[in-house]
Amino acid sequence: MNKLKVGVIGLGFMGDLHASVYSTLPNTELVAIADMDPTKKELGEKYNTTFFDNYQNLLKLDIDAVSICLPDRKHVEACCDAAIAKKHILVEKPLAHNFISAKKIVGACKKNKVRLMVAHILRFDPRCVHLFNNTANDDIGELIHIKAKRATIVDVADRLGSNSSILFYLGVHDIDLIHWISRAEITSVFAKKVEKLKNGNEDSLFAILEMSNGAIGMLDYSWSWPSALPSGYNFNVEVLGTKSGAFIDMRDQGIWKVEKETLSSFDTHLWPEINNKITGNLKDELSHFTESIQNNNNFLQEPEYASKSIKVIDGIFNSINTGKVSKI
Amino acid sequence: MNKLKVGVIGLGFMGDLHASVYSTLPNTELVAIADMDPTKKELGEKYNTTFFDNYQNLLKLDIDAVSICLPDRKHVEACCDAAIAKKHILVEKPLAHNFISAKKIVGACKKNKVRLMVAHILRFDPRCVHLFNNTANDDIGELIHIKAKRATIVDVADRLGSNSSILFYLGVHDIDLIHWISRAEITSVFAKKVEKLKNGNEDSLFAILEMSNGAIGMLDYSWSWPSALPSGYNFNVEVLGTKSGAFIDMRDQGIWKVEKETLSSFDTHLWPEINNKITGNLKDELSHFTESIQNNNNFLQEPEYASKSIKVIDGIFNSINTGKVSKI
Amino acid sequence: MNKLKVGVIGLGFMGDLHASVYSTLPNTELVAIADMDPTKKELGEKYNTTFFDNYQNLLKLDIDAVSICLPDRKHVEACCDAAIAKKHILVEKPLAHNFISAKKIVGACKKNKVRLMVAHILRFDPRCVHLFNNTANDDIGELIHIKAKRATIVDVADRLGSNSSILFYLGVHDIDLIHWISRAEITSVFAKKVEKLKNGNEDSLFAILEMSNGAIGMLDYSWSWPSALPSGYNFNVEVLGTKSGAFIDMRDQGIWKVEKETLSSFDTHLWPEINNKITGNLKDELSHFTESIQNNNNFLQEPEYASKSIKVIDGIFNSINTGKVSKI
Amino acid sequence: MNKLKVGVIGLGFMGDLHASVYSTLPNTELVAIADMDPTKKELGEKYNTTFFDNYQNLLKLDIDAVSICLPDRKHVEACCDAAIAKKHILVEKPLAHNFISAKKIVGACKKNKVRLMVAHILRFDPRCVHLFNNTANDDIGELIHIKAKRATIVDVADRLGSNSSILFYLGVHDIDLIHWISRAEITSVFAKKVEKLKNGNEDSLFAILEMSNGAIGMLDYSWSWPSALPSGYNFNVEVLGTKSGAFIDMRDQGIWKVEKETLSSFDTHLWPEINNKITGNLKDELSHFTESIQNNNNFLQEPEYASKSIKVIDGIFNSINTGKVSKI
Repeated sequence: MNKLKVGVIGLGFMGDLHASVYSTLPNTELVAIADMDPTKKELGEKYNTTFFDNYQNLLKLDIDAVSICLPDRKHVEACCDAAIAKKHILVEKPLAHNFISAKKIVGACKKNKVRLMVAHILRFDPRCVHLFNNTANDDIGELIHIKAKRATIVDVADRLGSNSSILFYLGVHDIDLIHWISRAEITSVFAKKVEKLKNGNEDSLFAILEMSNGAIGMLDYSWSWPSALPSGYNFNVEVLGTKSGAFIDMRDQGIWKVEKETLSSFDTHLWPEINNKITGNLKDELSHFTESIQNNNNFLQEPEYASKSIKVIDGIFNSINTGKVSKI
Repeated sequence: MNKLKVGVIGLGFMGDLHASVYSTLPNTELVAIADMDPTKKELGEKYNTTFFDNYQNLLKLDIDAVSICLPDRKHVEACCDAAIAKKHILVEKPLAHNFISAKKIVGACKKNKVRLMVAHILRFDPRCVHLFNNTANDDIGELIHIKAKRATIVDVADRLGSNSSILFYLGVHDIDLIHWISRAEITSVFAKKVEKLKNGNEDSLFAILEMSNGAIGMLDYSWSWPSALPSGYNFNVEVLGTKSGAFIDMRDQGIWKVEKETLSSFDTHLWPEINNKITGNLKDELSHFTESIQNNNNFLQEPEYASKSIKVIDGIFNSINTGKVSKI
Repeated sequence: MNKLKVGVIGLGFMGDLHASVYSTLPNTELVAIADMDPTKKELGEKYNTTFFDNYQNLLKLDIDAVSICLPDRKHVEACCDAAIAKKHILVEKPLAHNFISAKKIVGACKKNKVRLMVAHILRFDPRCVHLFNNTANDDIGELIHIKAKRATIVDVADRLGSNSSILFYLGVHDIDLIHWISRAEITSVFAKKVEKLKNGNEDSLFAILEMSNGAIGMLDYSWSWPSALPSGYNFNVEVLGTKSGAFIDMRDQGIWKVEKETLSSFDTHLWPEINNKITGNLKDELSHFTESIQNNNNFLQEPEYASKSIKVIDGIFNSINTGKVSKI
Repeated sequence: MNKLKVGVIGLGFMGDLHASVYSTLPNTELVAIADMDPTKKELGEKYNTTFFDNYQNLLKLDIDAVSICLPDRKHVEACCDAAIAKKHILVEKPLAHNFISAKKIVGACKKNKVRLMVAHILRFDPRCVHLFNNTANDDIGELIHIKAKRATIVDVADRLGSNSSILFYLGVHDIDLIHWISRAEITSVFAKKVEKLKNGNEDSLFAILEMSNGAIGMLDYSWSWPSALPSGYNFNVEVLGTKSGAFIDMRDQGIWKVEKETLSSFDTHLWPEINNKITGNLKDELSHFTESIQNNNNFLQEPEYASKSIKVIDGIFNSINTGKVSKI
């Protein structure tokens, strides 16, 4: 089988990781990478590939597919450009920074007959897959409630400032997860937020959800914890039904380092490096994207499904602004 | 010092515990106990004290103080009767089943010049006391959010049926705790509940709170978990401020028993029995109540403070019924 | 009932705690305290009691019982002096720094007809009591193995230097616990230690035990962990039998404080302070000691039983020195 | 690049997994599988490959490499046969059931110029790799102690009976890990075991180790826990040095299912299945084995290194039999 020719647009934290994985997958050839910042050229040397400081040049090449890892607000333009250039697209989450843009991207891909996948990495996390497998209706009966909690240290919020929102950076993961695990739709939201640290986005944000199957839901976000929070974050999902319940608690990765001043934890699932290669969920995600194109198989998730999460985020912002329940 | 003469009214689960503790405290004499159910007479023998099947008879005795451990809806009558009989009162939580009744009880005690304490046992839990001590304004800065979660196995809800509500049985603990730890007032609530198990009360209930200091709060209750939930319950409080955060997580009591079919955990704080005597938070609570009367010291909490939690519960029920935010 | 008149000899960390508890117990009167260090006089004012810089003066008073909280190597002399002065004795662990001294103390108390209790505080820890209650032969069948692990930050070892040993400071707790929980005797030991930090005592010490009931045992000690060890210590006991098993894991006290640089945990069992009074295991221990004297009841543990742990410690030192198995 | 032609010998639990992974790796072709049990023929259909009930027939094919997943005691014969047939070998752990056999296998591979890798899967576990990366001498200073604990439910021991030993099934993992993480050799062992359940092997086995760098070590095994042990097993590694320490605790996989009678946990690292393909450590191990052959790169671990663990196991059995320290 011929290798799939791929490119990466946007070489921030995630784009660098995508490039690294593509450079080691046995079924892909990393043809080119692009970033506006010319100092990223060194990544071209690191991954033995061509670097452009303008992604339009990358799109002119004979490339089958691209990863788009740009800031949220630039997704719509870059995805439409890639679609017109007839490249299949893996776009980092969130699909877009509002629902109108999400629809524009999905439409452009349909019109140009290119395939679109949103990088919802939790679909490739063994814990989340176990949660999904163990919450089928036969297992849990009728859904009573579903909750997702994500807390991180404030460093992330400080770094991103007003360029993102807790809902785009953290929330979109769990809103998609709630749709997936609940096998239902979010039909209304009521939300409140606090901004006391004044770093440009929300300190904490809570929301109560109504689900189409009569269950209630909750979103619980804060990225304003001091740096000594063990492992730097806390991810928790809880699903309860009339017959059983299940939960994920990722505060503890199972590995700790203890020094005089510092307690450290380490990623063991997302993109751990073993023997100089990145493995884990990200590798499985990029393998799925590229092998599904090569073998003409369905993606795990169609882009219309991913769009729904963006619509819910629009609704949460609306509820915060109005102080009332927002129908989705 | 003379021993304080005490009685116990209502000999259910909690009343039995109160009687047991009073019978071993060095500063108290358990003069009498009372319950409508005549089979409880055996507790009189067990604790070597006089049993009545009508609490009015108990109130006629030369007794300084009583514990009232009756069902929620009977608090108002029994407390007023005890006040008129000039007995100091320790009433089990919740103070009353609605705010009007709470005010009636507080008024009756004032009028009759008897002292009233509500058995908010978390005030005597070392973990909660540490949480309070470590969340002073100097420690945490400005409050960002505060949350309380309580999940239990469904057995409790099945047993109580429509005689209680998750808010009276579990919620009142945490609403009082939130007032205490936050050093602020709850000013509004929005809440949703689910009732699919049809055992007469709520399966799960979520609420978002606004606080008088600009923080947000959350209540997260479910008492519908299957029996294999580790340790049978999960109590979690989280407080985050602009300078630090703190949390309690009581899912793990630190002691487990492993059998072929069953994993068991054990209470190590509330009322553990050591060397045939009950100790722990309950003993400290009853010592505080009785010694404060003897030494004429203030209680840790005045009844007006406890009343506020009942007002918030009224507001939560109102929000659920109207589907809207309820001002407190 | 008249209050028991008590004194405290040795006002280091533990002696101060004993004095504090005695000053609040309803059944005791703290008549005097003593320490060689004259600056400890301020504790006399704090606890409103008489201070001596020579314990012999304290022993001349009309006192019923004393707590002896001196360094390990001074136990034998002070206990014998107190016995001759006809005071009942609560001596902090370890009973003595070797088995010969332990026998001397027990003999002096018998000869002088005073009662002797060793402050094995774990006998008053709810978790350990639950462990004991849940490992009766009917529960666990035949014992397979029993283990105790204790790890602490190096600060303690640095502070004590060569004045103690990991076996006296930490080990004696668990050796007594193993005797108690196993309902059996330790019959042989093989041990190894490491001393690389050169602070005067052992960094880590491991031992394998044979038990009189055919089970095996293990001791696992290290007090050389860097300061960021979560909660500063890790106490773990594991008991496995042919029918069931049980374990204690005290790495997590259920309450955490998160600051920018520091993660803190808090004692919730040993001697937490609530409403300005010390409570928890220590209070229960001192209540048991004083009430047992007043009511002429047995102590939970006779001193001969406590002596056995000192004999095992002698055996462990012998095994380390010879490199061979040591019979007890 | 041409696909590597591979076969699998022995289709028990692990052999089935190897076959499954080889059937999905993009760089391998699963040419044949073999097992004495003719009912395993169905696996040939499942993985769309040729089945033999005699591995000698498989070895006659044009195959580059084989996985050998037979019972421990059959490793020596099958590995030597495969070596003579000039197939590169991935042999499941333990390399052999004693040191003489291990040397025979290594010698046969050298003589026949085939490459040999032992399936020490922990080398591909992100937690263990993090532990190794964080315990370099610069990080931890001088090693003080290293410990490995592994506890499992008794079901495994019951199933294996006298066909294996806790040292071969569980212990060899950790002995290899201790060599790897400590960067040192085990120089002596003292061990004790218990066999009360009479299922043909050890209930519990403890060992104290001396290391070539002056550290001490401990092995702590029991596979006799009742079935309700949370997650069914407990894997714990602890490494402490003069400058820092680190530990792995795998009792909690972060995902739980709660039913009326049962608490379940799920594998998230070894060989989780996502989207109908096995991923995780096993996939990374088989990718490493096959890609290293194709690219002529070194394996992570040479077989001489793996042999050392078998020598230590011989020493542990010797210590148990003699009751004395065994030099390695």
